[in-house]
Amino acid sequence: MNQVYVHEQLIRFSHCDPAGIVYFPRFFDLAHATMEDWLAEGVGQGLPALIGERRIGTPTVSIQCDFAKTLRIGETLRFELRVTRLGNASVQLGYSGKKQADGEEHLAIRQTIVFMDLAVQKAIPIPADLRPRIESFLAT
Amino acid sequence: MNQVYVHEQLIRFSHCDPAGIVYFPRFFDLAHATMEDWLAEGVGQGLPALIGERRIGTPTVSIQCDFAKTLRIGETLRFELRVTRLGNASVQLGYSGKKQADGEEHLAIRQTIVFMDLAVQKAIPIPADLRPRIESFLAT
Amino acid sequence: MNQVYVHEQLIRFSHCDPAGIVYFPRFFDLAHATMEDWLAEGVGQGLPALIGERRIGTPTVSIQCDFAKTLRIGETLRFELRVTRLGNASVQLGYSGKKQADGEEHLAIRQTIVFMDLAVQKAIPIPADLRPRIESFLAT
Amino acid sequence: MNQVYVHEQLIRFSHCDPAGIVYFPRFFDLAHATMEDWLAEGVGQGLPALIGERRIGTPTVSIQCDFAKTLRIGETLRFELRVTRLGNASVQLGYSGKKQADGEEHLAIRQTIVFMDLAVQKAIPIPADLRPRIESFLAT
Repeated sequence: MNQVYVHEQLIRFSHCDPAGIVYFPRFFDLAHATMEDWLAEGVGQGLPALIGERRIGTPTVSIQCDFAKTLRIGETLRFELRVTRLGNASVQLGYSGKKQADGEEHLAIRQTIVFMDLAVQKAIPIPADLRPRIESFLAT
Repeated sequence: MNQVYVHEQLIRFSHCDPAGIVYFPRFFDLAHATMEDWLAEGVGQGLPALIGERRIGTPTVSIQCDFAKTLRIGETLRFELRVTRLGNASVQLGYSGKKQADGEEHLAIRQTIVFMDLAVQKAIPIPADLRPRIESFLAT
Repeated sequence: MNQVYVHEQLIRFSHCDPAGIVYFPRFFDLAHATMEDWLAEGVGQGLPALIGERRIGTPTVSIQCDFAKTLRIGETLRFELRVTRLGNASVQLGYSGKKQADGEEHLAIRQTIVFMDLAVQKAIPIPADLRPRIESFLAT
Repeated sequence: MNQVYVHEQLIRFSHCDPAGIVYFPRFFDLAHATMEDWLAEGVGQGLPALIGERRIGTPTVSIQCDFAKTLRIGETLRFELRVTRLGNASVQLGYSGKKQADGEEHLAIRQTIVFMDLAVQKAIPIPADLRPRIESFLAT
């Protein structure tokens, strides 16, 4: 329990807007990359095989983000990912987005994903082989 | 009062993911395009001049989205944009994202932007020349 | 013969980089949108149905671009699209990218696409029902 | 002389299109990331400081790409970057894009960048402190 998945990404030229700061929709792309690596490394089942072999997807049903401070090109974003709620088919993920240099939180994301059978496009219970490892990231 | 800004966008190849549906971070990019055209056409002050000449930006401080149904390549997304709250420096925008073909709501976004003096990176009151037209979109 | 497909797109906030000009990879995305609309309107067969119903894709096998001048947020890019070479399975497209305001060419793209059977991932002859209309855009 | 800068990137969900392969404009974004890391690590001068402190940019004036084979989600792209031509103000970069798993070349890019004084938007000679290290990557 209480594991935290830490993922760092460099803020690149392509993430930034004419004001020189990250264009906010790209933070969701960066968060998705964090989720992908968490699934592969933290949960032990990467998205490519989950989708390609097991035909299970993890669509996002809701997401919420507060942007407290900006990030600029050349800075490093450090996401700390926790599971903040665990349902039957759904997982709520909490991302604390910090500037690596000083550890201050610049943004915070809450995202709810569901496990979905891609063939019939219906939500399914979290696969039994994945649930214990997902649960190990549950914040208490 | 009670104006609604309607903006339609074709879902393109580049918006869609390996599951053939819109990759959710791109909805925020599509919503940003709607906001840009609303500023230009609805409010009468486009972002290029606002940023370039007046040195005022409109960064997003929080955003929330519920995704009820997917959208696919070739479908048309119709955003209906309203002002859902009006502060001194901030504007909360509500986007109802409908599938144009049947008018059903597929997603809903709440976004709070602030007007910011780009030179000093501080929030400023909504410019007096823009406030009345922004207010005309306030949902009551 | 000698038809030209004209397609205009507003340069948006999200296309631009910290230097305030279009980040060059986005020009290929803008060109792809032009190709999509040309297929739908100029050739009479849109990509969604081509992929979804006929299971035919149009992957790019080579592309070349010269960037002579920049484009900025708020400007309108006007692509003039011609077919510059027509093979058995391949089509070479030439895009002249002009700034709409003054008609000057800012960039020029040459792109070769092939028609591909998506089931077997092999090139196929240009579908007979599409060839005459594609040929009508051949520059002579 | 003859140094090669090697840079590996995971192909992610967001890079892929409805056909499950990388949407080609994103290869240019991936190549740009390689160039950014090469500037920082290979040349010793990262783009953030180059732009932000020295006010020098490296816009792309031409680019050419051949796509021989596709790449899919979960595969790793390995770019091998060389300098293929060195001018007074310009550098031509050659990227051999290999699938890391088998070392086969899937795409090849030629890109010409120029060093530019951002204040006056004019090309300038390659900065003297950077030229020797850039030259060390020149393929002979």
